[in-house]
Parts: sequence; C-alpha cells; structure tokens
Amino acid sequence: MKIGILTIGNELMNGRIADTNASFIAREANQQGWSVEAIMSVGDDFAAIKDRLNYLLSMTDAVICSGGLGPTSDDITTAAIAEAFDLPLYTDESVLNFIKDIFTKFNFKWVENNAKQAMFPQGAEVLPNARGTAPGFSLSMNGKFIFVIPGVPAEAKLMVTNGVLPALRRHFPQKEQYIVKQTIRTFGLSEAAVDEQVKDIDFDSLGVNIGFYPVFPENHIVLIARSRNQDEARNHLQKAQDEVSAHVRDYIFAYGEQTLEEVIAGLLTAKKLTIAVAESCTGGMITSRLTDVSGSSDYLERGLVTYSNAAKISMLGVPAEIIKRHGAVSEETARLMAEGVRKLAGTDLGISSTGIAGPTGGSPEKPVGIVYIALADSRKTICRHYAYRWDRKRNKDIFAEAALFLLKNYLQGKA
Amino acid sequence: MKIGILTIGNELMNGRIADTNASFIAREANQQGWSVEAIMSVGDDFAAIKDRLNYLLSMTDAVICSGGLGPTSDDITTAAIAEAFDLPLYTDESVLNFIKDIFTKFNFKWVENNAKQAMFPQGAEVLPNARGTAPGFSLSMNGKFIFVIPGVPAEAKLMVTNGVLPALRRHFPQKEQYIVKQTIRTFGLSEAAVDEQVKDIDFDSLGVNIGFYPVFPENHIVLIARSRNQDEARNHLQKAQDEVSAHVRDYIFAYGEQTLEEVIAGLLTAKKLTIAVAESCTGGMITSRLTDVSGSSDYLERGLVTYSNAAKISMLGVPAEIIKRHGAVSEETARLMAEGVRKLAGTDLGISSTGIAGPTGGSPEKPVGIVYIALADSRKTICRHYAYRWDRKRNKDIFAEAALFLLKNYLQGKA
Repeated sequence: MKIGILTIGNELMNGRIADTNASFIAREANQQGWSVEAIMSVGDDFAAIKDRLNYLLSMTDAVICSGGLGPTSDDITTAAIAEAFDLPLYTDESVLNFIKDIFTKFNFKWVENNAKQAMFPQGAEVLPNARGTAPGFSLSMNGKFIFVIPGVPAEAKLMVTNGVLPALRRHFPQKEQYIVKQTIRTFGLSEAAVDEQVKDIDFDSLGVNIGFYPVFPENHIVLIARSRNQDEARNHLQKAQDEVSAHVRDYIFAYGEQTLEEVIAGLLTAKKLTIAVAESCTGGMITSRLTDVSGSSDYLERGLVTYSNAAKISMLGVPAEIIKRHGAVSEETARLMAEGVRKLAGTDLGISSTGIAGPTGGSPEKPVGIVYIALADSRKTICRHYAYRWDRKRNKDIFAEAALFLLKNYLQGKA
Repeated sequence: MKIGILTIGNELMNGRIADTNASFIAREANQQGWSVEAIMSVGDDFAAIKDRLNYLLSMTDAVICSGGLGPTSDDITTAAIAEAFDLPLYTDESVLNFIKDIFTKFNFKWVENNAKQAMFPQGAEVLPNARGTAPGFSLSMNGKFIFVIPGVPAEAKLMVTNGVLPALRRHFPQKEQYIVKQTIRTFGLSEAAVDEQVKDIDFDSLGVNIGFYPVFPENHIVLIARSRNQDEARNHLQKAQDEVSAHVRDYIFAYGEQTLEEVIAGLLTAKKLTIAVAESCTGGMITSRLTDVSGSSDYLERGLVTYSNAAKISMLGVPAEIIKRHGAVSEETARLMAEGVRKLAGTDLGISSTGIAGPTGGSPEKPVGIVYIALADSRKTICRHYAYRWDRKRNKDIFAEAALFLLKNYLQGKA
C-alpha cells in the first residue's frame, strides 16, 4: 500500500519548527510494510492545501494529514478538505458536548471559536483524541482514504498508533507484508568504503534493502527484509546480516540499537573490570560518554583531563623529561598517561588520549588531527595512533570514538 | 519570490531521521522575505525525484534540493535531475582532482565510486562544499533555478548560507528591502516563559518579527527587521533588541553566534584567569565544553572527573566524614570539590558539579535531576543548586550548561 503524508501549518513553512510528525508517521507506516511515496508540508492556505492533497492522492492509496485542526482563525484544514471534495460541513453534537464538558471541567472560558473543532465534512468518521480537544477524522473517497489528525506531536502520535494504523490495516488487509529490520553499527570505515565492501552481495535475491546512515563519526547499516511469510523475512534478513558481517566484521560494534558505550558497559560489567581515564585532546569527552550509561559508577572510577603538562606530570607521573624529549602528543606520553591513571585510580584498566584537535597546534611532523590512544592493564600497554582531518569539534568526537572502539576491541580480545 | 524545498533520501521516507535541512532552509528563505510554497521529501528513486521536482517547479521560482550526492549506489540525485531535463552528465576534472587530493592528503583508500561526486549535468554551476567531498550545483532552466546540495546537515547549512542564498539574491534582487537579524541566546527560561516575558512588546509597529528556537538546553530568540531603508531596519532591530533585553536580561548570555563557552573564553582571557574543574554527575562534560574553544589551554589547567568517593577524597581532599554526613551530592561536598581542585591545580578558579543524573540513584530528599554547582576563588566559594526533571542525557547537558552559566555570571560580576 502507498502512503502520502501532508503536514499543514505556517510554522513549518517559515521553518519555525522542524517536522517531527512526518518522520514519526513515516516510520510507523514503514514498519507496517507500507511504502511512503511522498511527504509534503504546506502552509495554512485553502488553495495550497487542496492542490497538495490532490497531488498526493494521485499517487497513493491513503494520505495522512496532520495540523490545522485547532480553534484559531488560521486553522483551516477541515474547511479546505471539505471544499476540495465539495462536501458540506456539519457539527457533530456529541463531539461539541464533549469539548464543552472539558471547558467546564477545567474552568476554561468558552470561546465560540472552539465549536469549530466539532465540525466535520459530510461522510467523515470521527477519530477520537485522547490528549486534546480537537478530534481527527477520516474520509473515504473513491477507494482512497484521507486521515486528518492534529499537529500537536503528542496528540498526533497517539492518534496514529490508536486510530490511523488500525483503520488502515482494516481497509487494506490483503496487502500486509511482514517486515523485519536490523541496524548494524560500524566505526572506522567511510560510507563509501562500507558500500564498496558490500557491493557484491546480492541483496535483491534475498528481498532485502540496504541503507547507509552516517551518524558522525559512526556509519550505520540498516537492512530491511519484506515478505508475505514471516519466517522467510527473518531468514532473509539473517542471511543478509551474515553476509554483511563477513565483509565488514572488524568495524562492527553493535547489532540493533546499542551505543558503543553501552556495549562497553556490558563487557566491563561481565568481566568485572574497572577503568580510569586520562584525557588530553578529548577534553573529558571519553569520560563523559562512559558516564552516559546509567550504572557507570560500577566500573568507571575516575577521569582526569590533564590539559596542562604540569597536570600530566604531577598527577599521572609522566616524567617532564619524556614530555620534553617526545612531546606531550606522542606514543611515549600516551602510554605513561594510561599507566599513570591506572595506578593512581587503582583500577584494572587505564585509557588515555593525547592529540591535536586543531585548528592550531599542528606541525608538519604532527599535523592537526593526529591522536595517540593508549590502554594499560596489569601486564601490558597497547598504543594506537590515528590521523583524522576534521574540524576541532569533530576531531574531538572521532578521537573519543576511536578510544572507545579500541577499548571495546580490547575487551573482546581483539586488540 | 517563491521557493520550493525537496529533500531526498530513503532515510526520510522510512522515518529513520527527521528532516532538519528543510526547516533550516525554510527559516533562511523566510528571513530573506521569500515565500516557501511547498516542502517535499522523496526517496532515492529516479521517477519519483523527477516527478516531485517538476511539480515543485510548476509553482515556484526556485527549488532547493538536498541529499543524495554521496558516493554510494543509492545516491542518485544528480543522475535523476540530469535525466529529468535531458542533460548529459560530465566529469568536472578540477573537482575530481580536488577530491583525489583530499584522499591522497589524508591517506584514504581511493574507491572509484568517489568519482561520482565530480559528475554534474551539462550547464551546471558547481557550488563548493567547504566541509565535505561532495560539491553541490545549480542549474538555470527557463528562468527558474534548481540548487542541489548534500544532505549532511553541517555541509548543507554552510552551503545554503554561503552558496544558495547569495546566488538567489543575485538572480532575484530584492526590491529595496533590507533585512537585518539578531539572535539573542538565553538559558534558564522555557520557550513559553520567554514568550510570556516579551508578549507586551509591540513588535508589529517596529516591523520586527520575533521567533523562538529551543536548542536544548538553551532558548534562542531571533529578531528580524525588514525595511526599505537600511538605517530604519537597523534602528528598529536595535529598539526591539533593547526591549527584549530589558525583559529577559538575566537569562541572556550572548548576542549573535557566540556559544556560552566562547563567551567564557573571552572573559577568562580578558581577566587573565585560569580555571580547573572537578566534576561528578556531568562526567567530563563541563571540561569538554570548555575545551571546545581553540586556545582553551591558555586558561583551562585540568579537569577531574571524580566519579567515585575515593577519587573525591584522595585527589580533592574532601574529608570522608563530610561525604558520610552530608552525602556526595550535597552543598558541602560541592564546595570542597571546587576548593580542592583549585588548590590542586594552582588556578585562580575552581568549579565543581555533583548531582543525580538518573534514572536511578534518587531519593525523596534528593530526587533525580538535582545538582549542586560550586565556584571557588581565592576569597570565597559560591554554591547554587538546581532541580531539573529530564532524562539522564539531558540532565547532564543542562547541569553542564547551568555550571557554565554560573561561571559566566561570576566573571561578569553578577554572581
């Protein structure tokens, strides 16, 4: 089944708010296995609403409209739709009484404008609104369906879930498909490189779609399998996932919705390991990400942002001599920072970062974007260095991600 | 002038991401005094892109398209637009060399797919992309204009501001209308509260529009003045700004595009003051935000994330007795953390945070969302506490913002 989405309101056209209803409706429709053909936004304008609605109906089986059902003069959606199909408007007395009751109950002053919210085009079926005064409605026109719901996101979401989706499933029962999806989260490959890695996999024969979603500094791969048969959808998805995994294995850190820090939390907890962090160029971001997970105090003992050389020397015990000879940004310093913080905190592990986030501070030998990351345990210290090329903020982001990714690999016995 | 916006990508049609480019472009177009007629999203599909583009062109003077310019196989925007207007594709050698240079410089593996980003429809004018490898382009067709820019928001925004808007202003010179705008950045008032504060100001008589843009945890107010006369536009903007400032003065931290940490950087530098940070619940976020400013090593000496009580005791010298009696989350502990880190680092100032980000760890007396922030100098220590009610991530964000806001007020002699 093909779906169109029309969001209505001047606040969308002047960019005052981002349209979150459209993406919510699209996601829900997609999960039903329906295809979203087009998403449109239009202002509170009679002619424009009629025109956009007809355009969307020309290519879809159902159009879901959101917004413009309120009591004020710029709320014209119901009237515009009635006019578009030459339907008279009528007042639904039970809805009117329901709205008036709410006003009485909450001691709101009744303004006659509110009666507008009880008016519907002839033939409409009222969709109740459990969170607000303006109900929605649906219309059936020549085998196609129009659903109209309010623009307030909390109201719209509930009405999509409880009203629109069940009605559409009733109207189009035969076209239902099973749809299953999987997200594969990767770090360390560019979007193009991920694509290149998987380009020989025959997704079409599996009935699986693949999409790439860069979420800096990560790249997420989304696989979607559709079939009339639920087991077949699941099997095809699993096959596609296995193939993709075989091609980009070293770069994957999670399947599904887990974040990198959540994966690490699980590994540290399972292994009963504690950790401390010594950061320079990342400025606290590694520690902050580790503490984004509730319960992180079970394994994170402390984090030090040793921004100055004095702090590296006095707190971490990095010899001034080493910093002088090799530089604060060096493998030697990174190793001593990781070892120093581990010893200071009395933890199982110590991890460190030192690098040049930019835009200043680079040299031909150590350019902006270079970072050293070290990880110490009781027996050894490993160190990696990477060279990135972003601006200061994104360099910090990718440095922190690289450190966490190394930590994950270490905990999985891969580093 | 009438504008259409077309955002392209399967990730929009399946609802995986909300469309922030469309609202950004709409806002910018609106601020130029142009009318946005329609906003549409479409998947990565040849026929659909062509169809939607033609529909938008039928009602507008210019269409701005975003997305689908990357190197992967699902990026088909350029090819679809070329096909829509029967234009052959050509490779721009200078763009190709530019992209190859980037790959060489950063030692990335060259994948032939990337050459796609140097292909354009015949007659296109290339729009440079300062933040990525995929340039955009513009086309002129029968007096109408098509602009095509990447979907990555950071790249898209810069290219709209630096490429698309100036080109459109050239093609459609404004009839003697001057537009000036000012952003007023605030923290500590909700959007509704800001609205309430300024509701008696007569913006209409000044010809000024006011908009509210929540950027969690901040609220930004944007004033836009339009006039035939440049001086009048500026005067009206200044008057509106003065009025708004008088009503929300205590909550403003910047006029224009400065971030809170940049304001603090300027104040610390001007006063030649150094600072050290001791964080608990914010997990490194205060320090990380301070280090987002290039040159922050001039005033930030170190930051400690003393997540465990042991770290608070051993590094900051908070007596175990105090933590036992008052709790790690208390005014007493916050004060001693700020004083301790100041002394340890030998800085002019010390700032600390201790609180409960949640979702666990709260109690009736100290609920989730409570935070104590202390700031110590050589003569005194001030402490504030706040109670928020967000989720863990947003609590961390707003705790860090509250700490930085207090620091700014202190540096301006207001705390």
